[in-house]
Amino acid sequence: MPAAVSIREVGPRDGLQNEEPIPTGAKVRLLDALSGTGVRRIEAVSFVHPKAIPQMADADEVWRRAGKVEGVRYSALVPNTRGAERALAAGFTEIEVVVSASDTHNRRNVNRSTAESLDDIAALIDLLHGAGARAEVIVATSFGCPYEGDVDPGRVAGIVERVVRDGADRVAFGDTTGMGTPRRVRELVTAVRDREPDVPVLLHFHNTRGTALANLLTALELGVTEFDASVGGLGGCPYAPGASGNLATEEAVHMLHDMGIDTGIDLDALVGVAELAEELLGKRLPSGVLRAGPRTRLTAR
Amino acid sequence: MPAAVSIREVGPRDGLQNEEPIPTGAKVRLLDALSGTGVRRIEAVSFVHPKAIPQMADADEVWRRAGKVEGVRYSALVPNTRGAERALAAGFTEIEVVVSASDTHNRRNVNRSTAESLDDIAALIDLLHGAGARAEVIVATSFGCPYEGDVDPGRVAGIVERVVRDGADRVAFGDTTGMGTPRRVRELVTAVRDREPDVPVLLHFHNTRGTALANLLTALELGVTEFDASVGGLGGCPYAPGASGNLATEEAVHMLHDMGIDTGIDLDALVGVAELAEELLGKRLPSGVLRAGPRTRLTAR
Repeated sequence: MPAAVSIREVGPRDGLQNEEPIPTGAKVRLLDALSGTGVRRIEAVSFVHPKAIPQMADADEVWRRAGKVEGVRYSALVPNTRGAERALAAGFTEIEVVVSASDTHNRRNVNRSTAESLDDIAALIDLLHGAGARAEVIVATSFGCPYEGDVDPGRVAGIVERVVRDGADRVAFGDTTGMGTPRRVRELVTAVRDREPDVPVLLHFHNTRGTALANLLTALELGVTEFDASVGGLGGCPYAPGASGNLATEEAVHMLHDMGIDTGIDLDALVGVAELAEELLGKRLPSGVLRAGPRTRLTAR
Repeated sequence: MPAAVSIREVGPRDGLQNEEPIPTGAKVRLLDALSGTGVRRIEAVSFVHPKAIPQMADADEVWRRAGKVEGVRYSALVPNTRGAERALAAGFTEIEVVVSASDTHNRRNVNRSTAESLDDIAALIDLLHGAGARAEVIVATSFGCPYEGDVDPGRVAGIVERVVRDGADRVAFGDTTGMGTPRRVRELVTAVRDREPDVPVLLHFHNTRGTALANLLTALELGVTEFDASVGGLGGCPYAPGASGNLATEEAVHMLHDMGIDTGIDLDALVGVAELAEELLGKRLPSGVLRAGPRTRLTAR
């Protein structure tokens, strides 16, 4: 088992993007609270068209008003050249782009084939590198596609090979609709490592079918040390109304700390931010550790 | 990894005991539906004082009316001699008794120390064996106590040694308030095996803090092949209102089948029973696989 893992908190972007819109000030409060938990990486905003994703229409203002804490790496997600230019102008140096491993899912999202999106991404990587930023490619539906079903790990590994050749600094694998299982994690990580052993890898799990922490455990056994998670489990799954979406950061941290694996995060502070997120959203979030408290929080006798 | 695991469905007893009471006919419907899923073991009822647990006041009638399916092993839980006599009179030959590894928790439950309860259990085992029944001892709070915190695996192993000496045919370990984690599972199973390598072991997980399937995965890696689970995740956790309680059977089966591990259970039929359970209870149950469907259930393009 690794001695430490690096958690990227994605609540402010991936989480809020999949919830009802909240005011700009609330987004800033959430970001600032997260910056105080000890987490070292935060996906802060995305620069997308406000008609496509109204939840991120105020990304520039959110980022301008948010406190930038020394030692925290902030990233932004962009869908295209226009978004990349906005992210660079806002000062981001870690930028994510997305492609779906499933052709059907990619067409549904951006009306282009996976191959066409990979061509776009090659150009985006050049743009980002030219401006001195690092480019991460997120491969969505890496563990399964809601339309196509199983996604061949060899296909995902081929995509990784392609984007690494095109200059990607890092790759992330999204379990977009929670189809990941320990078996799929093992198969995917092994296939990617066989083809590209050196590229930094991050895994992004959803808890739609209860497997998120089992997947995390499997990945740890394979030596993976970078994971996305979303405070409170922010970000419902659009394909399954009512189902939980993102792995809750405090559930991940709770299990990791119990295993003696360092994250740098203050779990109590994080649970406090999850409580704040519920208040800001005005709804109950699916995190069990938020609900019940860490296992170390005892009941009075 | 084992090729097959044995799931004991505990929704009709442990599940319903921790929900609002439902009519006798509804309980019979649930039991009969479960008997048709291919599951090979069902904890059917408990024989407890109706004032203590009104949900089980009609246990005799539920059991009399339920269809007994060939090849399914049905068990009952009893708290004392009176309950054991009722279970034997009803024809049960697999009977469970409970003790809590934590002294504080045991006193809260039955106003006796763990040691005093173990003396009672020794006498109960004799009674059950004298009537030709098998006795399983369930050790509650095996992975942690909500009042005391961590429970020493050596203490749990000592309890196992004692009950095996007293004739217990099997032992089960309950994660009563969802404090189990992969680390605690590994420590407990190892400690018990060191002391009593031959006694059949069953693990009962709660998903209160999201760890249930990670715990299951860890136990599989240790060669454990018997688990409790509750259809739909029936049975809220009394210590954490709103938190999920029992591991949902369909979440366990979904992950196990994906790993190629046989359970004998028809997953689609099981999800149908989880839907029935929601209807009978008139509430939403916490199971993700119930909500989103198995990963193989695709969305129309």
